[in-house]
Amino acid sequence: MSKATIAVIAAVSAGAGAAATAALFSMRSDNKPEATAIAARPSSAPLPVPVPVPVPVPASQVFSAPPAPPTASPPPTSAPVNPSGLFEYGFPGPVADLATRQGLVSSYDRRTRNPHWVAEHFTPASLAIRGGDRKHSTFLEDPLIPEKFQAKLKDYFRSGYDRGHQVPAADCKWSQRAMDDTFYLSNMCPQVGEGFNRDYWAHFEDFCRRLTARYPSVRVVTGPLYLPKRDPADGKWYVRHEVIGSPPNVAVPTHFYKVIYAEEQAGVPGGKVALGAFVLPNAVIPNEKPLADFEVPLEAVERASGLEFAAKLPPARRKRLCAEMSCSIVVKEYADRQKAFAKK
Amino acid sequence: MSKATIAVIAAVSAGAGAAATAALFSMRSDNKPEATAIAARPSSAPLPVPVPVPVPVPASQVFSAPPAPPTASPPPTSAPVNPSGLFEYGFPGPVADLATRQGLVSSYDRRTRNPHWVAEHFTPASLAIRGGDRKHSTFLEDPLIPEKFQAKLKDYFRSGYDRGHQVPAADCKWSQRAMDDTFYLSNMCPQVGEGFNRDYWAHFEDFCRRLTARYPSVRVVTGPLYLPKRDPADGKWYVRHEVIGSPPNVAVPTHFYKVIYAEEQAGVPGGKVALGAFVLPNAVIPNEKPLADFEVPLEAVERASGLEFAAKLPPARRKRLCAEMSCSIVVKEYADRQKAFAKK
Repeated sequence: MSKATIAVIAAVSAGAGAAATAALFSMRSDNKPEATAIAARPSSAPLPVPVPVPVPVPASQVFSAPPAPPTASPPPTSAPVNPSGLFEYGFPGPVADLATRQGLVSSYDRRTRNPHWVAEHFTPASLAIRGGDRKHSTFLEDPLIPEKFQAKLKDYFRSGYDRGHQVPAADCKWSQRAMDDTFYLSNMCPQVGEGFNRDYWAHFEDFCRRLTARYPSVRVVTGPLYLPKRDPADGKWYVRHEVIGSPPNVAVPTHFYKVIYAEEQAGVPGGKVALGAFVLPNAVIPNEKPLADFEVPLEAVERASGLEFAAKLPPARRKRLCAEMSCSIVVKEYADRQKAFAKK
Repeated sequence: MSKATIAVIAAVSAGAGAAATAALFSMRSDNKPEATAIAARPSSAPLPVPVPVPVPVPASQVFSAPPAPPTASPPPTSAPVNPSGLFEYGFPGPVADLATRQGLVSSYDRRTRNPHWVAEHFTPASLAIRGGDRKHSTFLEDPLIPEKFQAKLKDYFRSGYDRGHQVPAADCKWSQRAMDDTFYLSNMCPQVGEGFNRDYWAHFEDFCRRLTARYPSVRVVTGPLYLPKRDPADGKWYVRHEVIGSPPNVAVPTHFYKVIYAEEQAGVPGGKVALGAFVLPNAVIPNEKPLADFEVPLEAVERASGLEFAAKLPPARRKRLCAEMSCSIVVKEYADRQKAFAKK
């Protein structure tokens, strides 16, 4: 496609910013011939490929790799066409990119270049182990994601946003490997730094860890949301979010969710689970704001994310976390702890 | 969650439109108790459940239903935690909602309530059969999609947008059933009507059908895109799209893509395929605009959509459609044909 063609595509885009659309169509490697760019999946990135921990996940759940093509047999009906014959050329997706690492399990959104969700697990014992230090960890592009769908370090560079951990590094101090696992960009979203990632959101993460004072086992699922707002100009609802990188590559979420599963009995099938669902804006939040203000029904997170978080958890096993205990952040205590950690 | 809580969540949302965020959190049925809404997947809608045509698709590709939970066994390492234990409560997703119908195969995006892609197949013979008439078809919410993720008829009502077929009804005249299949909302996106869906886009659909004059078998994959534009105010890139419905439910795509596979030899394994990829804005397009202006590299659609369309099609089998023939719409001929059809 010629540059003129790109410009024309941009020109017919609705609204202002004519040159805008074109950027997404530019190839990352401009010196690559177009045919090559179309033809081949880029060779794997020259990054250290992590060896996933062999946590047992059934094959039906691991559709990180495209499924095998079907045999090209005709449909067993009198239909004159066979739409599924498309799969001879490959399955379009979506592919969940399920990654099972020591510190987390994650699913990646190839369109927004953010995770769909990242799941972690911690206990009083796991938080007590000091086997890893974030000083030894570095942010890495995730080689398990196909090159053309990866979030890149350069996308975040000078973007004005933090590389915001979804599973916090501080929850994975039990081994350097587990901590390193949290530094893949597939565990990151662009987050407002001052006043959010480094402040209220960090206190919220601390709230989750402090649940181990009461619960023997805690699971947390964290991820981004892209929520609409009503535009006062026309009364209509719009999703609007920045996309960082040049060309633009990684979506900046408007909000983040956490779904918390506080398990009353660790490892006991059928035990009670205190559930909490929270949605926070990707924005400065004053420390005085009560955490309980961000509690939402679980279904609200499900509708907004398109995901389901407790389909197999019967109502009889559920409790509401914020009815069981006070859902509030503790800024002072957190600050003290950070000081204490620094001395270690 | 109290209405006060909703209001507070909205109040901390970044930017203007404070009451905005709250709408997404409101439940569809306000008289439902919250516990019920959280606990159970809603019972299936009282719509006629289509019996999918048994086109052979391997089980590994059909992950419309959530996969079975893994056995809750401890990880086979010395890790003190087991993040994958989350799956005891269900697999969060994403779920591709692959639907195999007579007229099409589709995958649904539970977050945007639009399809990811819809694939069709037609031939000179299939287009010649007159077995269905759109007068006998009605738009339907798709009962194969869980209730809480469905696009609804009322979302489109008075939205100002057409219920835009992704697989056109006119491509499925070979049976009433195949035509009916195209009327599920899982085959629709909100499209600008005048000047786009009813005009340029319709001519583009006709272009695809006319390919059967040269090719014995044609496949087309169609779907929405949400592309960023540069905001002249700050020079940054933003995705901005409307969400229709009250509460807002269905995203309005900024663009649409079609990936065309014109097969030189129908049903012959290893035959040549002329590929064409096009991206059009969801906006008024003058008929004078050349179709070739909207041609893009296939990889551009892949990057923008997060999908892959020809991963298993070797370069040696590919041709470029618009190098093989003239890629242009024919407005007059199309209008004449429509008149001819109307007389039948």
